[in-house]
Amino acid sequence: MNEHIAPVAQEKAYRLLNHGPTVLVSARHGGVENVMAAAWSCALDFLPPKLTVVLDKATKTRELVERSGAFAIQVPTVAQLELTYQVGHRSMHDAVDKLAQCGVELFGMEGHDLPFVVGCSAWLACRVISEPHIQRTYDLFIGEVVSAWADSRVFSNGHWTFETAAPELRSLHYVAGGHFYAIGDAQDTGNVGLP
Amino acid sequence: MNEHIAPVAQEKAYRLLNHGPTVLVSARHGGVENVMAAAWSCALDFLPPKLTVVLDKATKTRELVERSGAFAIQVPTVAQLELTYQVGHRSMHDAVDKLAQCGVELFGMEGHDLPFVVGCSAWLACRVISEPHIQRTYDLFIGEVVSAWADSRVFSNGHWTFETAAPELRSLHYVAGGHFYAIGDAQDTGNVGLP
Repeated sequence: MNEHIAPVAQEKAYRLLNHGPTVLVSARHGGVENVMAAAWSCALDFLPPKLTVVLDKATKTRELVERSGAFAIQVPTVAQLELTYQVGHRSMHDAVDKLAQCGVELFGMEGHDLPFVVGCSAWLACRVISEPHIQRTYDLFIGEVVSAWADSRVFSNGHWTFETAAPELRSLHYVAGGHFYAIGDAQDTGNVGLP
Repeated sequence: MNEHIAPVAQEKAYRLLNHGPTVLVSARHGGVENVMAAAWSCALDFLPPKLTVVLDKATKTRELVERSGAFAIQVPTVAQLELTYQVGHRSMHDAVDKLAQCGVELFGMEGHDLPFVVGCSAWLACRVISEPHIQRTYDLFIGEVVSAWADSRVFSNGHWTFETAAPELRSLHYVAGGHFYAIGDAQDTGNVGLP
């Protein structure tokens, strides 16, 4: 495990997703591990932290999430631009070695039976809150964040530090057709630090 | 209506939210109009386009959405930084002149009984898809996008043009405590233009 990975307090975990990054979703079941990209993931609650993610019925990752009842959400970086695009456009249904093809390396976190992607800036271990109707009707899954971690070089004391961190640690925000934006400059209101 | 406002095709409407901006939610019922900020809004489907938004039970806007069955989602710009913060932190329950206090100006779109916020970069008129269980349990609302428009200076031919548009037209991405980021530089994979 990377020396820069530090735990994030439960009440600050929503901040890892609040700015709307494209994420990677990973899951494991029966010895099979997969990772996909998802632009449609969003914070849902502060404490306990919850989030939503849309998982298409065609994806192998969804099958692993439904069978295991757990998944990890992670925030990929500018350095992982091509990896993020590739895991979102290749399917394990077509190529069992998808992860190797996409250059994905996985690691574990003690106490969590989940595969985490090396090189991201944040990781959220989630358990599925079963809501069969919206899973079936909208492909929408709700997860409760049971633990979270971030790379202390770009998230510390409960805050992203994109303005001072290396540019390749910035988050990615997908639009379409292989075209992303990185997160940009800080914009502080006159109310920074107020509750 | 601003001369730069142009319709967005239904199949491209999801792109207005795909990069995860903080949005403004507006609604009208019984002669009352309100606007709030929401960092927790996300695309849900391509066609017909759908989206999710989290509306806390304490907000006046939620009451208007529940009564009217409709709302607008709009993408505020860097030029609207203070307005976005203020509509997210003041409540009409405390001040009936909230919108005037926050500097919000509204306009109409023919065929839609909704208030739209002047100066945003994109507008999505939505009807509520009633899902009482998730509305009650998670404050989560699903909307179908019935029409969408964008400012052609920053979104044209189905694409955001942040890289060439004026910096004050960039989208805002909220973290916490009055601290936002603007969307940043384009990051193109080797697959731009591929399906």
